[in-house]
Amino acid sequence: MDLYIIRHAIAQPIGSKNDFTDEKRKLTSQGRDLMREAARGLRKLGLQFDLILTSPLVRAVETAEIVAEALGYDQALVQQTVNLAPGASFAELFSEVKRHNGIESIALVGHQPDLGALVSTLVWGDGRASVPLKKGSVCSIDVMETVPTVRGALAWLLTPRQLRLLGKD
Amino acid sequence: MDLYIIRHAIAQPIGSKNDFTDEKRKLTSQGRDLMREAARGLRKLGLQFDLILTSPLVRAVETAEIVAEALGYDQALVQQTVNLAPGASFAELFSEVKRHNGIESIALVGHQPDLGALVSTLVWGDGRASVPLKKGSVCSIDVMETVPTVRGALAWLLTPRQLRLLGKD
Repeated sequence: MDLYIIRHAIAQPIGSKNDFTDEKRKLTSQGRDLMREAARGLRKLGLQFDLILTSPLVRAVETAEIVAEALGYDQALVQQTVNLAPGASFAELFSEVKRHNGIESIALVGHQPDLGALVSTLVWGDGRASVPLKKGSVCSIDVMETVPTVRGALAWLLTPRQLRLLGKD
Repeated sequence: MDLYIIRHAIAQPIGSKNDFTDEKRKLTSQGRDLMREAARGLRKLGLQFDLILTSPLVRAVETAEIVAEALGYDQALVQQTVNLAPGASFAELFSEVKRHNGIESIALVGHQPDLGALVSTLVWGDGRASVPLKKGSVCSIDVMETVPTVRGALAWLLTPRQLRLLGKD
């Protein structure tokens, strides 16, 4: 199984206009545009996701929807899970991933610093490594074992700028 | 300082024709072509190297020369060091890197599994992580500290195919 770890795009600051909570922060107009361009880079790479799991926070859901749209998927492929919300337990997330054991690739859309710690934990075994993941970054992990826990190899990590350059015609 | 870790391109197998030792294995014709295309991707990203350190093994030196040529550098920028040869000590390599403390970016051209272990050691503190690095891969590390040892953040890792796609006009 391949995991693709995607950080949400640029969102509104907390407290602006009608979005007073962190949970409801939407992507900015620029954030949506940049994410669409980055998602074209994912398409150029020929990536296929069988499932897109996303944090239930608005900025993550919107990011997941942009990715699904760019790859031509039905939005039903996007499923929200509290296991990708900020501060959630990796153990719960890994259990959820393992329940989808038969499928080949899952995209996980979420937040920093959680996702950097997730990459670190998947590849190194704990969250100590520094993996900054800019907004709109995508990191690919080849899962090599799921027992006793989910572990994998670092396949690649692209910055949003690199993805946008790739997506250009 | 940024470190760019580059695995050599595809080389002849041991014992073919006039290259009977591992040290003397040259890049294949296809290996050279693919590396030139990947190096165009590095140019597209706007990368600048102040120094290219390479393993003294022929396949690594040839790879370093292709990268230097693609970026328009004098080949004098390419310096061979035994500290990038297979099995060399990271402590010695880090001492060498630290002696270049004033410069902004160094490319390190070498071999697997050493380079994967180097990425793991730089980012996490030991060589345990699985970082496969295909031939012609490039990984960027932002060095954050050099005392007591060299440590950094994982900035990006591109496969040779991704670099070739980037390099296409």
